Amino acid sequence: MYYTEGLPVPETPSPGETPGPWERTDVVGKPRPRVDAYERVSGTAVYPSDIVLPRMLYGAILRCPHPHAQVKKVDTTAAEAPPRVRAVIGPGDPKTDLPWSFRDVKTTLFPKTCRFEGEPVAAVAAETLYQAWDAAGAVRVDYKVLPHVSDERRALEKDAPKVHENGNKLKTDTYSRGDVEKGFFEADVVLEQHYRTEAEVHTPLELHGCVANWDGDVLTIWESTQGVYAVQSRVAEVLGLPLSKVRVIGHYMGGGFGSKLQTSRYSIVAALLAKKTGRPVKSFLPREATFLAMGNRPPSNMTLKAGVKKDGTLTALSFTCLGTGGAYPAGGTSLVDWQIRDLYLCPHVRTECTDVYINAGPARPFRAPGHPQCSWALEQMLDALAEAIGMDPVALRLKNVPDYSQGREGNPPYTTTGLKQCFKEGARRFGWEKARRKTAGQEKKGHLRRGVGMAGSVWFVGGGGPPSTVILKLFSDGSANLNMGASDIGTGTKTVMAMVAAEELGLRPEMIRIEHADTGTTQYATPSGGSKTVPTEAPTVRDAAVQVKRRLLQMAAEEMDLPVEDLRYTGDDIVSRSRPDRRIRIVDISGLKRQGVVVGVGHRGPNPEKKTVNPFCAQFCEVEVNTRTGELRILRFLSTNESGRVMNRLTFDSQVIGGVTMGIGLAATEMRILDANRTGKMVNRNWHDYKLPTSLDVPADIVGVPIEMPDAEANISGAKGLGEPVTIPTAAAVANAVYDAVGIRITESPINPLKLSSLLEQQKKEG
Amino acid sequence: MYYTEGLPVPETPSPGETPGPWERTDVVGKPRPRVDAYERVSGTAVYPSDIVLPRMLYGAILRCPHPHAQVKKVDTTAAEAPPRVRAVIGPGDPKTDLPWSFRDVKTTLFPKTCRFEGEPVAAVAAETLYQAWDAAGAVRVDYKVLPHVSDERRALEKDAPKVHENGNKLKTDTYSRGDVEKGFFEADVVLEQHYRTEAEVHTPLELHGCVANWDGDVLTIWESTQGVYAVQSRVAEVLGLPLSKVRVIGHYMGGGFGSKLQTSRYSIVAALLAKKTGRPVKSFLPREATFLAMGNRPPSNMTLKAGVKKDGTLTALSFTCLGTGGAYPAGGTSLVDWQIRDLYLCPHVRTECTDVYINAGPARPFRAPGHPQCSWALEQMLDALAEAIGMDPVALRLKNVPDYSQGREGNPPYTTTGLKQCFKEGARRFGWEKARRKTAGQEKKGHLRRGVGMAGSVWFVGGGGPPSTVILKLFSDGSANLNMGASDIGTGTKTVMAMVAAEELGLRPEMIRIEHADTGTTQYATPSGGSKTVPTEAPTVRDAAVQVKRRLLQMAAEEMDLPVEDLRYTGDDIVSRSRPDRRIRIVDISGLKRQGVVVGVGHRGPNPEKKTVNPFCAQFCEVEVNTRTGELRILRFLSTNESGRVMNRLTFDSQVIGGVTMGIGLAATEMRILDANRTGKMVNRNWHDYKLPTSLDVPADIVGVPIEMPDAEANISGAKGLGEPVTIPTAAAVANAVYDAVGIRITESPINPLKLSSLLEQQKKEG
Repeated sequence: MYYTEGLPVPETPSPGETPGPWERTDVVGKPRPRVDAYERVSGTAVYPSDIVLPRMLYGAILRCPHPHAQVKKVDTTAAEAPPRVRAVIGPGDPKTDLPWSFRDVKTTLFPKTCRFEGEPVAAVAAETLYQAWDAAGAVRVDYKVLPHVSDERRALEKDAPKVHENGNKLKTDTYSRGDVEKGFFEADVVLEQHYRTEAEVHTPLELHGCVANWDGDVLTIWESTQGVYAVQSRVAEVLGLPLSKVRVIGHYMGGGFGSKLQTSRYSIVAALLAKKTGRPVKSFLPREATFLAMGNRPPSNMTLKAGVKKDGTLTALSFTCLGTGGAYPAGGTSLVDWQIRDLYLCPHVRTECTDVYINAGPARPFRAPGHPQCSWALEQMLDALAEAIGMDPVALRLKNVPDYSQGREGNPPYTTTGLKQCFKEGARRFGWEKARRKTAGQEKKGHLRRGVGMAGSVWFVGGGGPPSTVILKLFSDGSANLNMGASDIGTGTKTVMAMVAAEELGLRPEMIRIEHADTGTTQYATPSGGSKTVPTEAPTVRDAAVQVKRRLLQMAAEEMDLPVEDLRYTGDDIVSRSRPDRRIRIVDISGLKRQGVVVGVGHRGPNPEKKTVNPFCAQFCEVEVNTRTGELRILRFLSTNESGRVMNRLTFDSQVIGGVTMGIGLAATEMRILDANRTGKMVNRNWHDYKLPTSLDVPADIVGVPIEMPDAEANISGAKGLGEPVTIPTAAAVANAVYDAVGIRITESPINPLKLSSLLEQQKKEG
Repeated sequence: MYYTEGLPVPETPSPGETPGPWERTDVVGKPRPRVDAYERVSGTAVYPSDIVLPRMLYGAILRCPHPHAQVKKVDTTAAEAPPRVRAVIGPGDPKTDLPWSFRDVKTTLFPKTCRFEGEPVAAVAAETLYQAWDAAGAVRVDYKVLPHVSDERRALEKDAPKVHENGNKLKTDTYSRGDVEKGFFEADVVLEQHYRTEAEVHTPLELHGCVANWDGDVLTIWESTQGVYAVQSRVAEVLGLPLSKVRVIGHYMGGGFGSKLQTSRYSIVAALLAKKTGRPVKSFLPREATFLAMGNRPPSNMTLKAGVKKDGTLTALSFTCLGTGGAYPAGGTSLVDWQIRDLYLCPHVRTECTDVYINAGPARPFRAPGHPQCSWALEQMLDALAEAIGMDPVALRLKNVPDYSQGREGNPPYTTTGLKQCFKEGARRFGWEKARRKTAGQEKKGHLRRGVGMAGSVWFVGGGGPPSTVILKLFSDGSANLNMGASDIGTGTKTVMAMVAAEELGLRPEMIRIEHADTGTTQYATPSGGSKTVPTEAPTVRDAAVQVKRRLLQMAAEEMDLPVEDLRYTGDDIVSRSRPDRRIRIVDISGLKRQGVVVGVGHRGPNPEKKTVNPFCAQFCEVEVNTRTGELRILRFLSTNESGRVMNRLTFDSQVIGGVTMGIGLAATEMRILDANRTGKMVNRNWHDYKLPTSLDVPADIVGVPIEMPDAEANISGAKGLGEPVTIPTAAAVANAVYDAVGIRITESPINPLKLSSLLEQQKKEG
């Protein structure tokens, strides 16, 4: 009764046989609203921050107000005094001040030396949130404030204060192919330019935090996380528990953008407070703490030297970069040079990336970590080269698109490669040539100038991050339940997975219920990040659906007394191929009725294809600059994305709009401001002073154009990653459009009115 | 690191091969405390009644105060008036007064005609529990009180009020084999006796109830239930939802004894109130309502006529019974004649059981439904026959134990059959013959008389109730998570399953975490009832563990580059058979590390053995009767049980103590008292007036003696059911001991001081 009528269902492969790519689809690829849209917009969806448990306490963490300080003494007397405070924990107690590390760098939960503003110093649990905050505020701490270095450009200076005892340099990575000096020698034009991008903060709508509860020796944590299994393994490790005794539940999630890939000290602190009080503890951070301590896209200082022949052939790229991950290495490096190395065909390439420590919050992966920064340099340089040789920017890029006929530098061969199509179709749909002519010929008399710009990009992973296991249960009424360990962090993963299962089983997606990620009850998945959730989980879900079909076919074969090879699954029923009058409705199969459910276990192992799977993107935009005020209006944006098969046309558009919006933030509005010369403290630690792009900063006209190439080699769903590729070239495209409008190349982000008006003033003086 | 050292682990069968029975065990069968003992006794365990959700409301149901009444008018004005009342629902509204049925008998949620005291009339949701109760009390109902019949013995009288329009007779079941008249003719002694047992009420420690919450169109119910899948399917059916949109979660559970096998109207009502208010609703019944409406073991009126030869050979049994399921057929029939039909070898048997309606709460299955009642008649009759022919009661029973060499009456052949051993070993361990001589020879001068009695029984199912699917995840640190859809209703199922998985995988049971039953995230299982949970789930869990082992062996074979057949799983590691120096620790297998988990899916299909699987029991007790006061003290109890393999010696003992205690309740303390002649209302609807046996009514000396026969044919765990068999013969054994003490055969339960003192008085007069 729940089957969609009339949907043809693909043939089911025989047992053992791998299902081939869908030749055509009826559900996948169509625009489909979220399966949980109503819950999300009506307020009935329960997020971890909504969890309330009986007798639950509230936790609060006191954080160091200095970027660098010794904690000399912590006096908790005043904090413990109020009657409804249940626990205070802090440094020095071996039961609660456990070892903590950022990669190899060791510290503790409540360190004696705080190396960034916002490090935990003590924590309390109280009956209400406000009592908890009052108590945390009543902890008296004697700090010895130490000299700090909060600007990575000063970190390697001789007299710079040391963040760690062994100095401020973390590492330098180098890469080279060919001979760049030879390349520059062969070039007709060589340009060199310094670029900088400012630090951005993720600050997702849902705060970071968790609720922790002990059932005897079993710890359950409800956490706003991109990966429940990652939290489980870290918490188990720090608390010395077996994995089976730590259950992490995901629920709905209000965004992460990479900042919730990791486990934070607050989860351990909540577990310790819960243990100490024997009661559940909810510990969600205030907004300010997420600005300080929950990660950032760190600043990048880049110098790019490039050579090009008159015909547009790139001859050499030499790239150096100085970046920082803050006070600790936490995986949010700025130093990804992949655009330089892989986007264009260039025989001679050299990169050198140096990473230093500063007294600031640890960086965390931020939507395409390192890539938009690198694109900011490369794609502005490409524009400058094009201008220098008098070539159209799109033509220059097309000239240097690799032929992809084989893997590069010993890497496995590529699957689908749609970069050229992205450029061509994007230029066509945007009306690139006409728009360029129009801005070139615009009258210069008013104070408004228009410009168009574009940029391209590649994302360095796209084929997913197995392993993954999912379980699909088909109930006796034909409805289904999908049990998946991957988190839907707000991107619509559940909807896509419902569509995949629906496609394969001939169900309506609404009939499929998908459980939240939960290490206890759902199956293993890697964290939702790296634009790998759909390409990882979609083939796994399809595999599970195929298993269910096979089982139903076996049951029907027994019941109909026909060989299983003679049967065909149609969605509504199972039909004999040789005698089409013999058929049985799925919901009438007595084996299904007797068993109550049929279970399919889908699995995807590590890297099954041995292929290089890259998504590609090209973006085009038109801007208007007010030469009086320095204000920038972005008028329209077009993004062409080759991300394999489009799974859901609506979530495709959502990702494009979200990615472009974030890229506009990098280009034009966002920057973390540290008072580097005086206190070292962050001065814009809230949504008022830190400028996220709002709807007024973003054009209504953002168009996503899929370059659809179902990637059969990538996996049996045909999908590649989309969420990160779509934000990589945005900022560079905006900068190029600004140059086209007013002839000023803004190499340091953000392009805000303050900076732009001052540069326009300078241009006027010089002009 | 979590493996127990030195435990030998059985060989793993090759893929496809069914694992054989364990030849010896290291974990299974040993006494082992509950894996969740700490949670249960410390108060940290979350029961459904502990669930608190944000913005949760409290529901209350107004129940009909009459055993039979028409609901003429319901006025909710006063109930809706208070400011914190959020919803009132009642009869007549097609959105909330949905159709409801008990088997084939149709009614509605809020029926126009109430047929038992306690039927729902209206329901409210309010901000607090007390506001909800006040509001329910403020609903004004005009009842037309109808004549009632509350005694099944009057139900078929001509002038008896009709419970349903088509009369009070539900059905008569008959059975016969041989020719009973011939059998009585062949007998040397024929006795006939009338017996009666009173109705008992389950009244489990945890009240009945649930919390209901809607996430958009998905309904989640946290319910104190013996079977989450049973609740899911009924709720989906009544609300017209697909199964995938109803999630039922079990959590810890505080007892059911059969009363929580079914879905009740309160769950639907909570869902409707939650829908109407857009908020979660908690609806737990008050204790009184559980007495009235949540089931009972109904009264039985039995006449048994039996013939025996002088040598002890039973020749004929003729049994008639009048029982009732209350006002509606809800599965709690009193009419199970299995003891008569199957316990002893008897060629000529006839039974006739009539079931009638009365105006009382519907009966529900109650620990071994129908069996203790039937045993009350049969086992007292056996004692009377033994006395009549001058034979020892144990000897008489042994004379009539079937030889079990083949299935009876066309049934499949038996697996293990330990009835004879139960009698023999029980008599030996109890010191039966010496005790009988002692009571027979006791001086009659004081007011205290001792007596010993015994009884035997068979339970008519024991092999479990497939289908079942479980999922076992082995984490990379060697700890494990078991995902099982069967509820642990307090009997220790989880502990047994942890032991089974531990046995097979060589783990410590503490390293295995077992999730609560949950239709969303755990796998399919039938309800926990019928003493079938362990025999169903244990082989399923073992199957899953075997799958995990096989997968690990495959991974190790790949890594060690050895054929899988050459490898042996030892618990700690995997070793080459041919080159024992080549070994790899489980936690070092790189495939396990890479995958994060290894998943085993265990399955058990319907009735795989095609065997009759029966557990057997014999019980012996000693009592002391105070002939002045009529008080009965039960001094010691011994229960011999053949239930296949003992899985956990501690839970075996718990089941024995619990079953004997409940049997003592039937024998001596419990009876539902209906004011049948006047109001028809139940007069002892609380724990004060309704006499559950307390620790003062139960001997400290209750000994369980397992007759251990690992039932390899039943399933690969060797277990058969235990929980119900152990309560069947208890009441009869007590009655037989009372007869042995004072020479009074008490055929009507309970043997309370009121009844016993009056019979002693009568005996004195007659004597």
